[in-house]
Amino acid sequence: MQEKPLILVTNDDGITAPGLRALIRIMNKIGDVVVVAPDSPQSGMGHAITVDNVLTCNPITIDEGPQLEYTCSGTPADCVKMAINQILNRKPDLCVSGINHGANSSINVIYSGTMSAAIEAGIEGVPAIGFSLLDFKWHADFKPSEEFVKNITLNALLNGIPEGVVLNVNIPNLKKEEINGIKICRQANGYWKEIFDKRKSPFGKEYYWLSGEFVNKDKGQDTDIYALENGYISVVPVQFDMTAHHMIQKLNSWEL
Amino acid sequence: MQEKPLILVTNDDGITAPGLRALIRIMNKIGDVVVVAPDSPQSGMGHAITVDNVLTCNPITIDEGPQLEYTCSGTPADCVKMAINQILNRKPDLCVSGINHGANSSINVIYSGTMSAAIEAGIEGVPAIGFSLLDFKWHADFKPSEEFVKNITLNALLNGIPEGVVLNVNIPNLKKEEINGIKICRQANGYWKEIFDKRKSPFGKEYYWLSGEFVNKDKGQDTDIYALENGYISVVPVQFDMTAHHMIQKLNSWEL
Repeated sequence: MQEKPLILVTNDDGITAPGLRALIRIMNKIGDVVVVAPDSPQSGMGHAITVDNVLTCNPITIDEGPQLEYTCSGTPADCVKMAINQILNRKPDLCVSGINHGANSSINVIYSGTMSAAIEAGIEGVPAIGFSLLDFKWHADFKPSEEFVKNITLNALLNGIPEGVVLNVNIPNLKKEEINGIKICRQANGYWKEIFDKRKSPFGKEYYWLSGEFVNKDKGQDTDIYALENGYISVVPVQFDMTAHHMIQKLNSWEL
Repeated sequence: MQEKPLILVTNDDGITAPGLRALIRIMNKIGDVVVVAPDSPQSGMGHAITVDNVLTCNPITIDEGPQLEYTCSGTPADCVKMAINQILNRKPDLCVSGINHGANSSINVIYSGTMSAAIEAGIEGVPAIGFSLLDFKWHADFKPSEEFVKNITLNALLNGIPEGVVLNVNIPNLKKEEINGIKICRQANGYWKEIFDKRKSPFGKEYYWLSGEFVNKDKGQDTDIYALENGYISVVPVQFDMTAHHMIQKLNSWEL
């Protein structure tokens, strides 16, 4: 009998998040699951790591199931480093991160703690997938996602994900029968138009809340944003060689 | 007479860092300088943004010079958002970040607060360069870097940096006469092999310090690591479209 795959599960919304719980349930059907997740929400943490403070990491039981769980004081990238280098006694076959409460499409891959965990696993040579549902509510309905998440995960285990690449999966907030399928996409070219909401403290000191709206500059029908707007799940292969190879020739003509 | 370029200066070591002070001195010779930098060190912050807390941002004077300076409670990416959307009354012609105390070559571009500031500027359509010196000491000698930083900056202003690309410049820790020149490079394929130093608190609670050593898997003579090891300044063009375009065809053969 073949050994079951060892699957590392993490997220950025914290170890009690319903999206993580849903992901654990799905992964328990596929392999041996070890969860190492942040003890508190870490949204917007990008690829932060903890270099100026100590980390704690302790076993915990949140709900029933065969999974082993650990809660970690660090960022999502810290959790993955801790899991691979300290907790697990062999390299996991797969790392899955999420299911995030909210979108990580387009440029949000850069700001996303969910994707930073997947990318960290990829850097350490572990195939990895980040999953996000386009519903930021704590009690979002992850049920319609389950079969798709399972299907993508099984495909990744079967076909393999090449070194240097991780997958960024976003799921539209629709009923299962309304989801049109899965599309392989590229990252749409977009950005956040910031709004700084300026306020005054009771003591007269000015402070700001950062908010904003996402602007999609990219009309391409091969983008993740287009897929999601048309009822498809988007799968973007993401690389962490950030070299703009097409620019090297031009730079070599500068007078440096 | 032509208008002087408006240059936004930031970093991740904090507004009092000698590397930032050196960068301000260089930029004052080139344009009108506005500094918006973190009020405390932000190393390892990756592309974190502040979504769950308020931000403060106040004018400050650290040392003499024509520059305007602001200190901000957020991450390097927050500083750039704040500068572009709240403080400056026109889009800057260039954003420079650094000079970082320590290397940001190879995969460190992903963990780097210095580079996250440059990338944030790039996302917002502002040409940007991150500068790092391979000396993490607070009182590192930035003097040998000055002429090279000026030269690269003037070239960027003259030639322009295409949309979607920012520059990652690393400078070896050598005397000026020992620096062999500037090389255009790609990001070396490397990773951090983590070491978790496990300790016990006075109260018997276990905690960890994250440390490690960098492993370069890439023998390419066109990499930033190779250039730096051979006494060259490395310039890597960095893109924030992270799509692994070469993987899209393969993914389309999966049974999804």
